[in-house]
Amino acid sequence: MTAGPADARVPAPPIPVLAVVGVGLIGGSFAAALRRAGHVGRVLGVGRNGPSLERARELGLIDEAVDAAEAAARADLIMLAAPVGTFGAILAEMRAALKPGAIVTDAGSTKVTVAQAARAALGERVASFIPGHPIAGAEKIGPDAADPGLYTGRSVILTPLPENLAADVARVRAAWEACGARVLDMDAAEHDQVLASVSHMPHFLAAVYVAQVARSADCRRRLAIAGTGFRDFTRIAAGSAEMWRDIFLSNRAAMKAELAQVRAVLDEAEQALDAGDGAALEALLEEAARFRRDWKPGH
Amino acid sequence: MTAGPADARVPAPPIPVLAVVGVGLIGGSFAAALRRAGHVGRVLGVGRNGPSLERARELGLIDEAVDAAEAAARADLIMLAAPVGTFGAILAEMRAALKPGAIVTDAGSTKVTVAQAARAALGERVASFIPGHPIAGAEKIGPDAADPGLYTGRSVILTPLPENLAADVARVRAAWEACGARVLDMDAAEHDQVLASVSHMPHFLAAVYVAQVARSADCRRRLAIAGTGFRDFTRIAAGSAEMWRDIFLSNRAAMKAELAQVRAVLDEAEQALDAGDGAALEALLEEAARFRRDWKPGH
Repeated sequence: MTAGPADARVPAPPIPVLAVVGVGLIGGSFAAALRRAGHVGRVLGVGRNGPSLERARELGLIDEAVDAAEAAARADLIMLAAPVGTFGAILAEMRAALKPGAIVTDAGSTKVTVAQAARAALGERVASFIPGHPIAGAEKIGPDAADPGLYTGRSVILTPLPENLAADVARVRAAWEACGARVLDMDAAEHDQVLASVSHMPHFLAAVYVAQVARSADCRRRLAIAGTGFRDFTRIAAGSAEMWRDIFLSNRAAMKAELAQVRAVLDEAEQALDAGDGAALEALLEEAARFRRDWKPGH
Repeated sequence: MTAGPADARVPAPPIPVLAVVGVGLIGGSFAAALRRAGHVGRVLGVGRNGPSLERARELGLIDEAVDAAEAAARADLIMLAAPVGTFGAILAEMRAALKPGAIVTDAGSTKVTVAQAARAALGERVASFIPGHPIAGAEKIGPDAADPGLYTGRSVILTPLPENLAADVARVRAAWEACGARVLDMDAAEHDQVLASVSHMPHFLAAVYVAQVARSADCRRRLAIAGTGFRDFTRIAAGSAEMWRDIFLSNRAAMKAELAQVRAVLDEAEQALDAGDGAALEALLEEAARFRRDWKPGH
C-alpha cells in the first residue's frame, strides 16, 4: 500500500487556531465541543488563574496557555468566556496584536454594555467582534465542569453589530452549530431585557432568598428539613458570584425595570395574604401555575 | 397436602382499614406505599371530586369510595391529605361517627392552625389526632401522580399534641416508616416557622415571579429562550393553587415574618445594584453561593 502525504489530504479545520479567554465551564465546554467536532486545530488558553489554566491543559481542553497579546496574534477565532466586566481590558490588550482576518466573539450574558466596551477598546477593529451568548447553565464552575455536550440542543443568541461582515457572523454561527447549538439572531437591547427577565432575575431572587436563610439564627435546622423544592429553587444561587456581579451591573437598567414589576406583583400577593383574601391569592397562584405548566423548554 | 385455615396463619396488617381523604399525589402515594409494604388491608377513599376518586379506584390506590362519616366509622387510620383549609369541616363530619380506637393524622403543610382546627372540630376526641407533615414535592397533582416510592428517604415531621397517647403516635410513626420515610418530632410553631422559610417562601417567590413573567407583553419571546435556570427556579410554581392558597393563609404569621426579612435583603441587593457597588453585590452573592454549595439534601 502506498499513500500520498497525509497533510495534503486532510482538510484544515474551519478554525485552525482557537483561543479561549477564561477556560471554565463555558469556555472549556466550547473548546471541548469544537475539538470533538473536528472544528478546531490548536487551542490556546488565556486566563488570570494559573492553576486553573494548568488544569485545563491536563484535561486536554487547551493545548497551551498564552497571554492575551499572543492569543490575539495567533488565533483565528477568539472566544471571551471571562466575566463581562473584564472584556474591555482584555480587548484593549489584544487590539494592536490582532491577526488580520481574526474574529472575536464572546459568551457574555449581557450584550449592550459588551458591545459598548468592545467598541471603546477595539476602535475600527470592532467590525471583527461578533457578540454572542449561549443560554446554558452556569452553576458549576471551573475547567473540571467543562463538557463537550453542554451546548447540545441549547440556544445561542448572536447580536451582530452593524459593522460586522456577514461572512464573519456566519463563521461564529457555524462554530456554535458544530457544538450542537441552535443559533438565533436578536437585537442587543431586546436580548438584555429578555435575559434580565428569564435568566438574571431568577438568579437575583434566588441569591437574595438564600442569603436571607443563611442569616437566620436557626439556619442549620432549616437546612436539615429543606427538600426538593428548596433544592431546585436555589440551585442557581451556587453560581460564580463574580460572574453574576458583572452580569447584574452590566444589565442594570433592564434589571431595574424588571425588578419594579416583580415588586408590584410581590406587593399584590402580600396584600392578599394580609387581607386573608383567598380568592385573590388563589387567582394569582393559578395564573402562575397555568403559565408554568404550559411552558415547554426550548419552544 | 393438607393445610389449616389460611386466615388463622396470616397475621392481620398493622392497619386493617385505612381511609385517605384526598387521593392525589400525597394521599395516593401514602396508600400505595402502605399497600406495597403489606401494612394495610382495605383502603377507603374520600373526596369531593368524583372522577378523581374513580380514577384512584381504577389505579388500585383505593378499594372503594365512601363519604367522610362512613370512613370515620370503618377506618383504623384516617389520613387527611386534602387542602388544609378543609380539615375543620371534614373532621366535624367525622366526629360523631369515629370508631373507638381509630386514629387520625394529616399531611398538611402547616401545623399550628391545623391543630387548632382539629381541636375545635373534634373536642375531646382530638386526643386521637396526631398532626404530621411529609416533606415531599407537590408540583404534580392528582391520583395519576401517586407513587409508592414518593416517601422513600424523605423526612416526615410529626408535631404531637399534649393529649396524644404515645402508642398512637408510635402507630403513625410506624406507618410512615413503612413508607420508607424517616420521622422527626418537632414543636408545631417551630415547624411552621422553619417550613415558612424553606418550603412556603420559595413557592411564594416562584409564583410571584412567574406571574410577573406571564403578564409581560413579550412573554412568548421570553419563554422561547428560557433555559434550565428558569426551569428549576420555577418548577414549584406549577403546584396546586388551591393547596398553596391554604398553606399561605394558614401559615400567615410565619410567612409575614419571613417575608419582611426577605424584603430587607432584596432592598440591600437592589441598593448595591443602584449604587453600582460591585463589592457589596459580590459579597451578598458569595454569601448565598457558599451557603448553597455547602448544603447537602437530607443532612
